[in-house]
Amino acid sequence: MNSSLKESAVITFLAKQSHHIGDDAAILPLSRKENYVVSKDLLIEDVHFRLRYYPADVLAHKVLHVNLSDMAAMGAVPQYVLLGAAIPKGFDKQYVMTFLKKFIAVCKAFNVELVGGDTNRSSDKLFLSVTIIGKALRQHTKLRSTAKPTDCILVAGNIGHAHIGLTSLEQNKPGFKTFKAKFLKPIARVDEGIWLGKQSGVTSMMDLSDGLYQDARKLCAASGVGAHIHSPMAFTKEFQKACKALNLTLEEVQLGGGEDYGLLFTVKKDSMDKIQKDFLKEFKYPLQFVGKIVKGKGEVLIKKEGGLLSKPKNLPTFSHF
Amino acid sequence: MNSSLKESAVITFLAKQSHHIGDDAAILPLSRKENYVVSKDLLIEDVHFRLRYYPADVLAHKVLHVNLSDMAAMGAVPQYVLLGAAIPKGFDKQYVMTFLKKFIAVCKAFNVELVGGDTNRSSDKLFLSVTIIGKALRQHTKLRSTAKPTDCILVAGNIGHAHIGLTSLEQNKPGFKTFKAKFLKPIARVDEGIWLGKQSGVTSMMDLSDGLYQDARKLCAASGVGAHIHSPMAFTKEFQKACKALNLTLEEVQLGGGEDYGLLFTVKKDSMDKIQKDFLKEFKYPLQFVGKIVKGKGEVLIKKEGGLLSKPKNLPTFSHF
Repeated sequence: MNSSLKESAVITFLAKQSHHIGDDAAILPLSRKENYVVSKDLLIEDVHFRLRYYPADVLAHKVLHVNLSDMAAMGAVPQYVLLGAAIPKGFDKQYVMTFLKKFIAVCKAFNVELVGGDTNRSSDKLFLSVTIIGKALRQHTKLRSTAKPTDCILVAGNIGHAHIGLTSLEQNKPGFKTFKAKFLKPIARVDEGIWLGKQSGVTSMMDLSDGLYQDARKLCAASGVGAHIHSPMAFTKEFQKACKALNLTLEEVQLGGGEDYGLLFTVKKDSMDKIQKDFLKEFKYPLQFVGKIVKGKGEVLIKKEGGLLSKPKNLPTFSHF
Repeated sequence: MNSSLKESAVITFLAKQSHHIGDDAAILPLSRKENYVVSKDLLIEDVHFRLRYYPADVLAHKVLHVNLSDMAAMGAVPQYVLLGAAIPKGFDKQYVMTFLKKFIAVCKAFNVELVGGDTNRSSDKLFLSVTIIGKALRQHTKLRSTAKPTDCILVAGNIGHAHIGLTSLEQNKPGFKTFKAKFLKPIARVDEGIWLGKQSGVTSMMDLSDGLYQDARKLCAASGVGAHIHSPMAFTKEFQKACKALNLTLEEVQLGGGEDYGLLFTVKKDSMDKIQKDFLKEFKYPLQFVGKIVKGKGEVLIKKEGGLLSKPKNLPTFSHF
């Protein structure tokens, strides 16, 4: 969404009240060895999603995966979910029932139990509120606030694909099918998150929802460090072609595009090779090396070929549509 | 809120998916002896509250107490809270900051830790979404689904006072100060809920949010029993005078009025005297005996003086305004 000053002020105010606020999920002690982690998301029609892009089953998929992604970001195994819905008067009943059926089907596929639900009338827009609860061993629970200078920054999953999908939808362009699917039906990296949680070389983690540049800034601010992000990152010909057709630069898509729901994490320098190798073996796709943590106070700079450091220019104003 | 058929259908559908749905909170196993209980509430401007009735600090008080009441209903000690807010563009910043400050102050007063928060832009209305988490010994966790025929039905707290307050606000009537306060600033019966949780004679419990008649129906439906509710119940002269001045009948206020946030619970017949006596000693106000559980399938009948049984007539269409 487009963050206004006011919203940032509210988050900052809340964060000052509690050292817990800031991670993808809150941590509740469960036992000497385990934590529950709890996350809530408010998804609002025309703020986070346009109904016309989403058949009911696709919206259910996405709503749940966005929340599963918060669990993945903590290295947690998702366990329980609560669904709240505020539905406008006269809203299509069939849409609601299809949404619910798919929501429950996705829960079952991930062994997540739907333990609570409430519905309300809304004035004009559809509001969805999901609370998800997962479990992780304390030593496997990953935070945003624990990255250290010299750590390497890696990403599991796509970078910028969802933004191409969104842009092609917003520009009403036919084609771009795989990109549209990446945007509409992102796959939370649940197994990857659990696996990365177990790696002691992983020093911090979060999910990629607002775009690599914004999310790296959050991670750096929480950790009290800085980062250099390499640009451009690796891309396929198809990716480059799509950017061109939509009048997007590689940099704005890779650094500014949101909603990929991959995992952004840092690893100790000397663990990187082994984690990359083991990850590839386990998940059959490579991790992407995107930069390094440096000393700093939350600043993220872009490192171009040749080593030149700069602030990014002309990143898109991030929108969740 | 005004429940439409559609919303009931959604809840029914959800409830069929999970045996957990239906209580005031979902139960998460914590240890062999303890449960976490989790509840979420979506509070929507002009569905659940009119902004003009609520100064920011009063709204914060109410939002939190409505959720604390869900913990009380389970016999749980509230522990953690997560706050989500969707704020319309251009919304009064001072209102938001005052709301947050009071929200945090009430959390502190109840030893509840704010562990998560997120804000979003909303289209036109203020949406608040609260998730609250409490802890209870397994043997002290009370449910709605465990009432048995011959159990007595009791209420801790006021019955109908909030409805008088709401009606006087809606009719724009001056005065009715104590009733308006009961409506705007209800006090969750947190200590009472914890205490009642410890009483083995208490067989089921929920909170009073939608009115005694509607809530008794929910308890009976969950337990697979019926109930006879006595009418009229005890009332003061001030209460009677207020009803008259607002053109309300005693019956519609006592059976139909919502938002009192007292506790509705059942006790074994032979535990009743002791629980009533001990409660009075502990909390300095008496429990109200309001009826009996009978065999049945969710029907609630009204028992008038003389023993005549009937369905209630002309109950107000319940609204949260």
